[in-house]
Amino acid sequence: MKGWEKNIRKVVPYVPGEQPKQRGIIKLNTNENPYPPAPGVAAALKGMDADMLRRYPDPTSEVLVKELAAYYHLEPEQVFVGVGSDDVLAMCFLTFFNSQKPILFPDITYSFYDVWAEMLRIPYERCALDEEFRIVKEDYYKANGGVIFPNPNAPTGVCQDLAAVEDIVAHNRDVVVIVDEAYIDFGGKSALELIDRYDNLLVVQTFSKSRSLAGMRVGYAMGNKILIKYLNDVKYSFNSYTMNAPTLAAAVEAVKAEEYFKETKGKIVATRERVKVELGKLGFRFQDSQANFLFITHPQFSAREIFEALKIKKIYVRYFNKPRIDNYLRVTIGTDEEMDELISFLKKFMGK
Amino acid sequence: MKGWEKNIRKVVPYVPGEQPKQRGIIKLNTNENPYPPAPGVAAALKGMDADMLRRYPDPTSEVLVKELAAYYHLEPEQVFVGVGSDDVLAMCFLTFFNSQKPILFPDITYSFYDVWAEMLRIPYERCALDEEFRIVKEDYYKANGGVIFPNPNAPTGVCQDLAAVEDIVAHNRDVVVIVDEAYIDFGGKSALELIDRYDNLLVVQTFSKSRSLAGMRVGYAMGNKILIKYLNDVKYSFNSYTMNAPTLAAAVEAVKAEEYFKETKGKIVATRERVKVELGKLGFRFQDSQANFLFITHPQFSAREIFEALKIKKIYVRYFNKPRIDNYLRVTIGTDEEMDELISFLKKFMGK
Repeated sequence: MKGWEKNIRKVVPYVPGEQPKQRGIIKLNTNENPYPPAPGVAAALKGMDADMLRRYPDPTSEVLVKELAAYYHLEPEQVFVGVGSDDVLAMCFLTFFNSQKPILFPDITYSFYDVWAEMLRIPYERCALDEEFRIVKEDYYKANGGVIFPNPNAPTGVCQDLAAVEDIVAHNRDVVVIVDEAYIDFGGKSALELIDRYDNLLVVQTFSKSRSLAGMRVGYAMGNKILIKYLNDVKYSFNSYTMNAPTLAAAVEAVKAEEYFKETKGKIVATRERVKVELGKLGFRFQDSQANFLFITHPQFSAREIFEALKIKKIYVRYFNKPRIDNYLRVTIGTDEEMDELISFLKKFMGK
Repeated sequence: MKGWEKNIRKVVPYVPGEQPKQRGIIKLNTNENPYPPAPGVAAALKGMDADMLRRYPDPTSEVLVKELAAYYHLEPEQVFVGVGSDDVLAMCFLTFFNSQKPILFPDITYSFYDVWAEMLRIPYERCALDEEFRIVKEDYYKANGGVIFPNPNAPTGVCQDLAAVEDIVAHNRDVVVIVDEAYIDFGGKSALELIDRYDNLLVVQTFSKSRSLAGMRVGYAMGNKILIKYLNDVKYSFNSYTMNAPTLAAAVEAVKAEEYFKETKGKIVATRERVKVELGKLGFRFQDSQANFLFITHPQFSAREIFEALKIKKIYVRYFNKPRIDNYLRVTIGTDEEMDELISFLKKFMGK
């Protein structure tokens, strides 16, 4: 080892889902939206004044913060925006989780939480989901340095009702509780309505799933003004100008397109419910996902084998080689046509 | 104070230069390029397939990394890209500066260094520039946890010659030395040619100044493959997808436009040299800046007063209310017309 290597922060990085470059694949592995962004997004990009790119963007991202605040009936000072919800969550870990006590999150959950905790040397403890992959809310009542969980949870798709979320927030008034609602637009009830009553609650959402803008990198957090102010202080201490001008323009258009938003998410939910029935007929088992994916297992067929067989057919789904979930597949809801191809392959694979 | 506030990382954030929204101003306060980005950038944005934004961008930013590697005759594994050089430098602080010993940087320098160090709880020590704002290289030979300095330095514009840079790198083989070359394209010699000989050297550059893309947020680091690998590990542990698709497309076009790049930076350098003469005639004093700004002071007129008077005339320059430099102004080199307006105002202000 070189001398300078001793001061290196050595980490085991998060491994994002595969982004295959070949064409003609059915990509159901990273929970992207099968429908394009709102038409206004393309228009905003085409209409960009490229000459203005010589100037720094607005460090406050005012145009987008205001648009989101109006959409959610909040004050602009209650909204924080970042480069995808991963950037927002990384900033949250840096800002809010500085206790000697462990932060708490589920054992089966978004696989970035332990990566951030390890990277930032934050002590953490995983609380086991029950046998039906539900969060056991009482596990989060013990002393801790902060709480984070996705709702609906990933990769399970299981959604907690708002009363359970509120119980967790109410039992943790002396730490910050982050509800990561990346998938909330596909079902479930947002904890947003609780932020006026609980100043320790932060709700994080994203444009990557329901608003078809994964490629643009936009996430946001909503909470009381003091939380948002602390978050902005750290953001300004990390990188003042995170959101570039085309991103702000595109994101504003995505928020404005309410009809298109409702229509596309309605289609995804309808497809999801239909696919649940079809997969049920094939003997697959899964919880009642409220997200844009299903987390499925089969009593006779190995998830890993199905995963490999699908890949050969250029159908990509996500497999996690981790305790408790190593016989599951996370399948993103694509278009009806894509899901029909998946189901028809599965029928053949299972000899039906 | 609320209970949850005790775990907050409380910081004094970096204050970016003003971004006034009014029109008709002469903006010489944030070292932006007065010329638009290469014509290919506008074409790339207009040609973007907005439908593809529903997919995550390439987390490896391969297209841009390869373009930069080819441009600088490096291997792609020697190049790291991020959301402006601020993002790159923040990642570097996280990755490389984890010693109990203080990192070293100049007392007068980019004002983000101490912000990152404070935010990340990294001990640091400032080494005083000499009376002519030159780095005293011997100050960096003592035991330390890492070294960072801009070359040319900001806000002074003073450039170290490559031999002095090499001396600092060579005296610090057991820590990482970062040379922040945000302004190197306007003069001075890059330390890039040293990276094969010194595996502890990282060179950071940006698209914000010489490539007119401040609004797009693109920075990069170059060094040996092991350094870059560690940096990527931390980046993937923070936010896997930082560079959005339009940014990658725009940045590639900016690198390709070599003739345009030479022409615009040539114009800025010519304007700078002419303005040096004009300001000298007015009695201003300044070092021989090699950057796209001048750092000026006047024996008879207060910098603060000139700053305020310029602002009323809608000419924005940068004033730092800090020890040793509180009678200086940092003036970005704009177009010839903009600089003529500045000089003509200064003449009137000084009764000449």
